[in-house]
Amino acid sequence: MCWVPGNCCPLCWLPTSVIGCSKVLLRPRTSEEVSRILRYCHERNLAVNPQGGNTGLVGGSVPVFDEIILSTALMNQVTSFNSVSGILTCQAGCVLEGLSRYVQERDFVMPLDLGAKGSCHIGGNVATNAGGLRFLRYGSLHGTVLGLEVVLADGTVLDCLTSLRKDNTGYDLKQLFIGSEGTLGVITAVSILCPPRPKAVNVAFLGCPGFAEVLQTFSTCRGMLGEILSAFEFMDAECMQLVQQHLHLASPVQESAFYLLVETSGSSTGHDAEKLGCFLEQVLGSGLVTDGTDGTVATDESKAQALWALRERITEALSGDGYVYKYDVSLPVERLYDLVTDLRARLGSQARHVVGYGHLGDGNLHLNVTVDAFSAALLDTMEPYVYAWTAGQRGSISAEHGLGFRKRDALRYSKPPPAVRLMQQLKALLDPKGILNPYKLLPTQA
Amino acid sequence: MCWVPGNCCPLCWLPTSVIGCSKVLLRPRTSEEVSRILRYCHERNLAVNPQGGNTGLVGGSVPVFDEIILSTALMNQVTSFNSVSGILTCQAGCVLEGLSRYVQERDFVMPLDLGAKGSCHIGGNVATNAGGLRFLRYGSLHGTVLGLEVVLADGTVLDCLTSLRKDNTGYDLKQLFIGSEGTLGVITAVSILCPPRPKAVNVAFLGCPGFAEVLQTFSTCRGMLGEILSAFEFMDAECMQLVQQHLHLASPVQESAFYLLVETSGSSTGHDAEKLGCFLEQVLGSGLVTDGTDGTVATDESKAQALWALRERITEALSGDGYVYKYDVSLPVERLYDLVTDLRARLGSQARHVVGYGHLGDGNLHLNVTVDAFSAALLDTMEPYVYAWTAGQRGSISAEHGLGFRKRDALRYSKPPPAVRLMQQLKALLDPKGILNPYKLLPTQA
Repeated sequence: MCWVPGNCCPLCWLPTSVIGCSKVLLRPRTSEEVSRILRYCHERNLAVNPQGGNTGLVGGSVPVFDEIILSTALMNQVTSFNSVSGILTCQAGCVLEGLSRYVQERDFVMPLDLGAKGSCHIGGNVATNAGGLRFLRYGSLHGTVLGLEVVLADGTVLDCLTSLRKDNTGYDLKQLFIGSEGTLGVITAVSILCPPRPKAVNVAFLGCPGFAEVLQTFSTCRGMLGEILSAFEFMDAECMQLVQQHLHLASPVQESAFYLLVETSGSSTGHDAEKLGCFLEQVLGSGLVTDGTDGTVATDESKAQALWALRERITEALSGDGYVYKYDVSLPVERLYDLVTDLRARLGSQARHVVGYGHLGDGNLHLNVTVDAFSAALLDTMEPYVYAWTAGQRGSISAEHGLGFRKRDALRYSKPPPAVRLMQQLKALLDPKGILNPYKLLPTQA
Repeated sequence: MCWVPGNCCPLCWLPTSVIGCSKVLLRPRTSEEVSRILRYCHERNLAVNPQGGNTGLVGGSVPVFDEIILSTALMNQVTSFNSVSGILTCQAGCVLEGLSRYVQERDFVMPLDLGAKGSCHIGGNVATNAGGLRFLRYGSLHGTVLGLEVVLADGTVLDCLTSLRKDNTGYDLKQLFIGSEGTLGVITAVSILCPPRPKAVNVAFLGCPGFAEVLQTFSTCRGMLGEILSAFEFMDAECMQLVQQHLHLASPVQESAFYLLVETSGSSTGHDAEKLGCFLEQVLGSGLVTDGTDGTVATDESKAQALWALRERITEALSGDGYVYKYDVSLPVERLYDLVTDLRARLGSQARHVVGYGHLGDGNLHLNVTVDAFSAALLDTMEPYVYAWTAGQRGSISAEHGLGFRKRDALRYSKPPPAVRLMQQLKALLDPKGILNPYKLLPTQA
């Protein structure tokens, strides 16, 4: 079965994006079936591309040559949920939004949330170590995933599906597979710790006159909102222009150089409103924030969603603007926006827009460049420039998107040779025939 | 240099505890020195025992035969601290309490705290994946450790000492070494995320009539205290008796079957006191808690410390009671105390005391048995009984203490054969000559 009809040649992923090609798509329902598939493929040296919701941005979930697609789409059952501990155990193919709904009905929330929630699978989230909108509050999947079931390249089922908060018996093997992008094993089930559902959620959308003020607002916010701060997102003026132009969304605040979305999630409506009120008074009074009045604060869900849309739909607005080059980097927060201004100056009129937005609280910048159409020459102007710039700050050239197929050769910008060597040794140990998601994550050359 | 003078024979760790033996103790100051030591030992097949504060309870940090001790004691420098992000980078030999003080002066706290803080080293904490008193709030070191520098068995320095919250470039190698008990590499530096220092801390000490009430109080507490709940510890009546008898500490509450220590840490004194007040009113009114009046709630530091001492000094009280058999298990919270009552019935008059206490909020039970003197026959009555009981609940036979030398052969009770096999393969890959902390963590027989 051809996966993308009419796009079935090994090189057609170039130049615009990674478009895959495969003659076989398999959709197992159980880990036993996954095990049988992998045993078969391992014996016959057949390459396999594990695939969840296929929402990645670096081509990790797309076959490059003739890999067999192993989709988790039919592995979508919740196995158990403990309403005292908040521990959820489910199959890898459960869609994140479905799980969110499931645990919310039981007064808990998933510890992760991201734009692709309507289609991404929890197994894929774990395999790519997805970050997203709740990272600031609940941290990394390396901390919230309690157990995994993984099928190894030769079909061995590795049962590390514990649902305990603490377990120090031997090496924590599940960690190997979190963020391994399907190259070390196929995740078939996940046990994850869900925090209690917050009783009160407030969202404020604010304007800031400059990046220095953005940083000071962040410090003030951490101090004054404390443990109820659940998101601190930022976008620049060009992002807002694109969102207004392509999606016809109205800005709730007066024109500013930067915009902030601050979210609180807590257990007391009154307490949280009081904390947020004091914070707003402080930042408005001191001139850190130029606009953050009544119309920009939401306590009810629909208004909060409208404010979130301004931030979450930036990706969509960018797509409407032309061809988009996307970068996802971690940087020391003080230097976060310098990369945007530097690249903007470097590209000049060659780009339509160079925009910066992202998870400021996590030091995670999404840097996007829009142009009329893809140009290899322009790509050469940006790469390895962006990677070298990031490496110069000891940043990460992939904060939350992974390396996949597109960025695997840039790995060395963030990891030294002994680390890359050890990664290759781990790959050789766990997948000696190299059948699992080949051509991904690790560099082309040893 | 003999490490424990007069105790220098290979078998003298039996029967009471693990007492080590070594002729050489090395105390490097830099990772370069660690690298040279390991390169030398690797070339000559010399076994090495990495050692931090030597506060472990399972013999992981003690040489068993003639290993060279590699102590991190002189590697005690803080490298950097970022007061915006709260990210601390330091050498492995920094003592936890010193780091706590260092970051508290800068308005942050370490994400972990434990009884041994006055002597344990941060490198050892990471190597053993220490849990402790702040786990409930800040989670596992797998989530809070951002980067590590590790020297591999052959002397290679693996620099994964990033200080970024997000980094998805390749496999997250540092995770391999968290909890590996020095068997895969020697941790020489740590980068860790410190949360902001809470402005208000409240501690309540409560009495509960039964374990069912303990569980209901926990559920109520999670709901009503929400994001400010930072500890939920429990101890049984026998613990309190021993603390009173051996340490002469007075119980602040009337005699009860169980005692709870509830701690809140938040950003607003007024809000937190209000939340705690409502919670106490609720649990006292409904009879879940029999005593939790004014004298049992602390808002000032010295009184809070006095309440914490009742819980933290149980270990000391037990030592005063005779020889102590110690178990540290994770269990589904509903079954947590059944293991204590079952073992108490099983041992009858053979034991002085069988007590249960620990981190209830994390599902982590410390089960201790005191007797007049060590008896191998009694050990046989308890082991593998305790391990098999725990395995029957899909629990962990070591929640936060690791396996070390004493519990390595019990690994199979918590991990299936394919997992043990993969652990052995990882050990062979990273330490092919087996020079790093041999006789630890992995079972004697393949």
